[in-house]
Amino acid sequence: MSTPGTRVPPPGAGSLRPEQFLDLIAPKLERVEAELRRQFTSPVRTIREVGDHILDGGGKRLRPALLLLVSDMLGYEGEFDITLAGVVEMIHTASLVHDDIIDDAEVRRGKTSINYRWGNYLTVLVGDYLYVRALDTALEARSLEILKTLSSATIRMTEGEILGYELNGRPDLTREDYFDVIERKTAAMFGAACRIPGLLVQHPSEERLEDYGRNLGICFQLIDDVLDYTSSTAVLGKPVLSDLREGKITLPLILARPRATEAERRLIDRVVTEKDFGATDPQELVAIANRYDAIEETRDIAREYASMAREALSPFPATASRQALEFALDFVMSRER
Amino acid sequence: MSTPGTRVPPPGAGSLRPEQFLDLIAPKLERVEAELRRQFTSPVRTIREVGDHILDGGGKRLRPALLLLVSDMLGYEGEFDITLAGVVEMIHTASLVHDDIIDDAEVRRGKTSINYRWGNYLTVLVGDYLYVRALDTALEARSLEILKTLSSATIRMTEGEILGYELNGRPDLTREDYFDVIERKTAAMFGAACRIPGLLVQHPSEERLEDYGRNLGICFQLIDDVLDYTSSTAVLGKPVLSDLREGKITLPLILARPRATEAERRLIDRVVTEKDFGATDPQELVAIANRYDAIEETRDIAREYASMAREALSPFPATASRQALEFALDFVMSRER
Repeated sequence: MSTPGTRVPPPGAGSLRPEQFLDLIAPKLERVEAELRRQFTSPVRTIREVGDHILDGGGKRLRPALLLLVSDMLGYEGEFDITLAGVVEMIHTASLVHDDIIDDAEVRRGKTSINYRWGNYLTVLVGDYLYVRALDTALEARSLEILKTLSSATIRMTEGEILGYELNGRPDLTREDYFDVIERKTAAMFGAACRIPGLLVQHPSEERLEDYGRNLGICFQLIDDVLDYTSSTAVLGKPVLSDLREGKITLPLILARPRATEAERRLIDRVVTEKDFGATDPQELVAIANRYDAIEETRDIAREYASMAREALSPFPATASRQALEFALDFVMSRER
Repeated sequence: MSTPGTRVPPPGAGSLRPEQFLDLIAPKLERVEAELRRQFTSPVRTIREVGDHILDGGGKRLRPALLLLVSDMLGYEGEFDITLAGVVEMIHTASLVHDDIIDDAEVRRGKTSINYRWGNYLTVLVGDYLYVRALDTALEARSLEILKTLSSATIRMTEGEILGYELNGRPDLTREDYFDVIERKTAAMFGAACRIPGLLVQHPSEERLEDYGRNLGICFQLIDDVLDYTSSTAVLGKPVLSDLREGKITLPLILARPRATEAERRLIDRVVTEKDFGATDPQELVAIANRYDAIEETRDIAREYASMAREALSPFPATASRQALEFALDFVMSRER
């Protein structure tokens, strides 16, 4: 164990505001960008070009930020937190790259995705390269436990994506199905990101760190799913109810469906099965979710996960970075896109 | 270092015949099949189904066989050679799965490939799963050096595939371009397979083992490319000159092209650029390669690599497994499919 990070200043003496939760690690986050750039270093032209395209696109960098904040909270003084923050983001990026592969029947939003510009085959190969290059880079920390944490989370993420696809077009998903998917697809990697600094300093409470990350990840996904109902196209940059349009029923309608009338249920089922609103105004589906308080209930459930995440941090010293990790929960809960 | 494997019986006293080079490790190869099956164990149905589909298809299992023979030659007595033989085959399998992703413009042979049955998106995800699961399984041997060997070879393999795709449709490939691609795409993983047992027993000549594997790999690819010219559809199971048909010029025509007449060169360039024979009989291209002795020369070059591979084995004791590794070279040189 190492020395804990900076102590929180006394109340009123200029403590952090929630939206500043990244300020503490801003210089390190810049170094993560350099790490990401390094992972695209290759004698092969296409890898470098796709790298420029991806890095110019930016990103929230939420996973690396959490890893770095936990690292700061634990007082880790080495350099591998930056390396591994880059690794975690790169694995996430690889999954986004492969997400863009178009199935024959399916067309995505019109933006210049990687596969639109480079074609499916190169997109697959560059994603493969990123997954393996990320795990290769993780070897630098010389920790089998960290490698195991990363590979397990990546396996779960992939399983979650496959499971989600298996369940696609099925309106009768249970709450358990839904949580099984998001725990694998989203929460596992957040959990890994937060556990890794615990492994770097060999902290005895590494599991609580993973709990924090997993619960935050579930919260993040729940709010994502809520935003699909509540946000407008202009704010979110994608059409409202885009999940439903792709045959994916999420928690709000999963909760509403058993409470709905026969006619409402038929409408939900038709949209999910046909992956098309047809003559139906999408706002009708939003109205159904609201009518049975399902959006608010989803938000409440997200809030419970945020509480569990907060609780998982309780054994750690009250440093500025712990406060920032708590603010990260507020940020996830209150984000509008 | 451990004790070397079984000594070769004295000449005449029933030594191995070339085609029997696998007999020595047949029981271990069976256990590799069980390893492969284990890597498809998952709570996710699609992963198990694709696993059954892949494993029922069988395969040469050349990479695991070489790993196990080297392991036997070095007298390794643990179990990780079987685990890692499975890992190497699984990485190879993952690359084959992703190879099948159809680019919009491109249609593959009509057989039930994985993406034909499961669609592009699931095929991508199952391939991802296999890559990461393979590296996760490799963690069991608890050797960072082995992990580095595997990840480096996988990165090179992916780079080679991307490079090959960048060069696709270009008739002016140089011999250097060609070797750059095959060294990455094929030779690196053969090299890794043969190096790994050296790392398991911490053998001081591990680099010679990798040399053996790399040179055998190049030899394997050269003969593969020769067979595209010399074998019939019936034997090879795919149309003759299928590489050319996909816009891929290989060593025979790379060697013949500068020696060809202007008209012959124009013909080569048209087929490679258009990825279509049009009115041309494919046999005309075979005739050009033969006219300038380019097929025989490719075979000679393959033979040189086989010699280098054989030479790399010289410091190792003359066990039955070393003899089998030499026979593997004869097998690769003389195979007809």
